[in-house]
Amino acid sequence: MTRSITYTALPGIPRVGPDDDLVRIIADGVTRAEIAVASGDVFVVAQKIVSKAENRYVYLDDVSPSDRALELAKTVGKDPRHIEVVLSESSEIIRSRQNVMIVAHRLGFVMANAGIDESNIEQDRGHRVLLLPENPDDSCERLKAGLDRHFGVNVGVLVNDSFGRPWRNGVVGVALGTAGLPALQSIIGKPDLFGRPMQVTEIAVADELAAAASLLMGQAAEGQPVVHVRGFSSPARINAASALVRPKEQDLFR
Amino acid sequence: MTRSITYTALPGIPRVGPDDDLVRIIADGVTRAEIAVASGDVFVVAQKIVSKAENRYVYLDDVSPSDRALELAKTVGKDPRHIEVVLSESSEIIRSRQNVMIVAHRLGFVMANAGIDESNIEQDRGHRVLLLPENPDDSCERLKAGLDRHFGVNVGVLVNDSFGRPWRNGVVGVALGTAGLPALQSIIGKPDLFGRPMQVTEIAVADELAAAASLLMGQAAEGQPVVHVRGFSSPARINAASALVRPKEQDLFR
Repeated sequence: MTRSITYTALPGIPRVGPDDDLVRIIADGVTRAEIAVASGDVFVVAQKIVSKAENRYVYLDDVSPSDRALELAKTVGKDPRHIEVVLSESSEIIRSRQNVMIVAHRLGFVMANAGIDESNIEQDRGHRVLLLPENPDDSCERLKAGLDRHFGVNVGVLVNDSFGRPWRNGVVGVALGTAGLPALQSIIGKPDLFGRPMQVTEIAVADELAAAASLLMGQAAEGQPVVHVRGFSSPARINAASALVRPKEQDLFR
Repeated sequence: MTRSITYTALPGIPRVGPDDDLVRIIADGVTRAEIAVASGDVFVVAQKIVSKAENRYVYLDDVSPSDRALELAKTVGKDPRHIEVVLSESSEIIRSRQNVMIVAHRLGFVMANAGIDESNIEQDRGHRVLLLPENPDDSCERLKAGLDRHFGVNVGVLVNDSFGRPWRNGVVGVALGTAGLPALQSIIGKPDLFGRPMQVTEIAVADELAAAASLLMGQAAEGQPVVHVRGFSSPARINAASALVRPKEQDLFR
């Protein structure tokens, strides 16, 4: 049997604002793409539009930088109020230097600036920045509930973002949240073709889906922030993207 | 316009041995999949079958472990001859402890065991291990030349492997080599929707393709080691996967 997976960027997704209904926006995109949604399909949604719909904006005029933020601002060379917002979303600073602040986000993601960036953000009253969703796995569960109801099926949902990485140039798509998917698939004990136990034990399935969708979304435009996936299937147990976060004490690079 | 990318695992790829003709093997898989190959298509090929076709086997009986390998074997708990082979393929040991050896491969990839593993390897006379291709970008160029000639088109070729990562659980597909692709796409200076310069400057396009293909290849079986990609396109300048390797002196995590 020939197996295929097809990723389709939903066309015509409008700019998303606070309290917009993402289920309706995605459903309209599905109509434009002329896709008949089926159980097992997956929707990958860019973090940025989920954050916007959840109104995760912070206005810098509302922020008073702490002494720590003022100190860090000298090293990093950014607005201390912006740094204060990064600190408020972080549990630990992993590395900081000129223009670089790698932190552990409060949800465990090790990433630049706690995922807070300023590109593709409309400014209205004063300068504002956009945080990650409060809890991306929960965001996915809510979206899945809405999409399942709308289409009368059982879909998977994934919220992705782009992360830099140690040792390799360039960013790649990564899963911040999932619902209805095996985000991390265990193959412990599954023998290889020649009967020896596998050395590799876990596959970051959701990160591979996130990367594939990211390739289609592109980076610069906000125009293709939703990707429909047809043909992904896995017999593995469903777990959330939080399973992808390696506990600090198990990490050789913290 | 609705944009899609479709990944298809070529069915019926046989076990690959030294000096097998991968172009012929891929072409036969394309026939079985009933795909009409076109310019712009990409073939993602698993490292393991490229290494096998290039006869990158080392027999442990032929290896004399150095003092350093004998010493490391105590920490890592592996056959010192295996460790000697890892050392011979590495420029630096990044971390080592029980069952774990993270090294910089001579080509710059930071990975476990210099990419040398023993799963899915047929043993014949004595125990043997399989190295990465001598130069994966060169392997891709040769495959591309053969495939372009065979099909009369202009394709991209990518050799992928699965890497573990700091901070996140599970392995993901990564590009070891490419030909005819923009492995690393620069978006420096490309403004966002609201005219500010982008913060993200480079996209690891080849790693995203590698991850997407890896999802379809699976891990345990060697049965689906070639994936055909239709619909990928990029206006970016072509560069090789070696561009994905971050120089040591530019890395915050070395």
